[in-house]
Amino acid sequence: MGTPDPFQSAPENTRTEIMQATYDALREYGYSGLTIDRIDEQFPKSKSLIYQHYDGKDDLLVGLLAFLLERFEESVPEDETDDPRERLEELLNHAIPATPDSEWTEFARAMTELRAQAAHDEAYREQVTRTDRFFHEQFAEVIEDGIEQGHFRVVDPEAAASFLMSVIHGTRDRQITTVDETVLDAVQTELNEYITERLLVED
Amino acid sequence: MGTPDPFQSAPENTRTEIMQATYDALREYGYSGLTIDRIDEQFPKSKSLIYQHYDGKDDLLVGLLAFLLERFEESVPEDETDDPRERLEELLNHAIPATPDSEWTEFARAMTELRAQAAHDEAYREQVTRTDRFFHEQFAEVIEDGIEQGHFRVVDPEAAASFLMSVIHGTRDRQITTVDETVLDAVQTELNEYITERLLVED
Repeated sequence: MGTPDPFQSAPENTRTEIMQATYDALREYGYSGLTIDRIDEQFPKSKSLIYQHYDGKDDLLVGLLAFLLERFEESVPEDETDDPRERLEELLNHAIPATPDSEWTEFARAMTELRAQAAHDEAYREQVTRTDRFFHEQFAEVIEDGIEQGHFRVVDPEAAASFLMSVIHGTRDRQITTVDETVLDAVQTELNEYITERLLVED
Repeated sequence: MGTPDPFQSAPENTRTEIMQATYDALREYGYSGLTIDRIDEQFPKSKSLIYQHYDGKDDLLVGLLAFLLERFEESVPEDETDDPRERLEELLNHAIPATPDSEWTEFARAMTELRAQAAHDEAYREQVTRTDRFFHEQFAEVIEDGIEQGHFRVVDPEAAASFLMSVIHGTRDRQITTVDETVLDAVQTELNEYITERLLVED
């Protein structure tokens, strides 16, 4: 009743702006160079708002990790095909595109830095686990569909999904943490062979 | 000539002690909690010695990364077999053991944290690239040997080696950054299938 509190009226909006500022600062300074002041520099509103929503650097970054992972989950292309082979290609290409743009590279860089915190911090580990399971499930499902439809050989869908998750994750991370720019190409060549030789039923 | 300078007489030793202290502090506090003071707590000698050898936290950690990677490279079991299949298993088991002990887990945790810095820092990236190439080379060689000896199918050794590197790296990292303890098992199951179906010539 009365004048709405502007901080209450658009809490989602403010949170999104804080997340954007945190992402911008992370991309510019990296995890090791990140400070609340540097996040504030990218934030158009008052610094006190940041503290109103988050308890500090790690709380902000766990929030950012959750935010980015949700966006990434939402960005999975809709399943509009009935062909499990096509769907598998679509999922793989979403995770490790053949020709990554700068947006993918920046996202991958941020993910590598944030994920690494999970080695010592349970709050990060929870987010990473949730997303790992989400994508694992997508792969296991498409493999199950492929087996049911007779397009895929009878493999263990859980083991094959976990294997694909490792390939994706390892490839993204190696592409980001080494100077060897052939990583994506080389892995994709062999990944196609794996799919053909191991997963697909011969036509 | 005259009394030897104790700091000069055993520089390698002091460096090793500094590296040990840095590793101990990293294992205890993680990258985000690491400070020179906490490294010094683990170091039996004077703090000034740390500054005599290293320029600060990141210089120490790049040094530690190089140190750990060298040790890891040296720990590759000697190639005493003529059987490329056996050698491949040996290399894979060295990288992702079936039953990892706490030493492996702590090493993997440190590697995940240090490697992630390579996303933003060239000095780290240089070390990561060097080691990635070292292990890539080991895999490419054993695959080439296998092809030459007729045990392996004629695959592209570079692409297959890069693929295996991604599997290893992704698996180690997922094992460390998620709570799902079945990662190693699931991946190893499918990795064996990959080797059988894709790499080995049928007997």
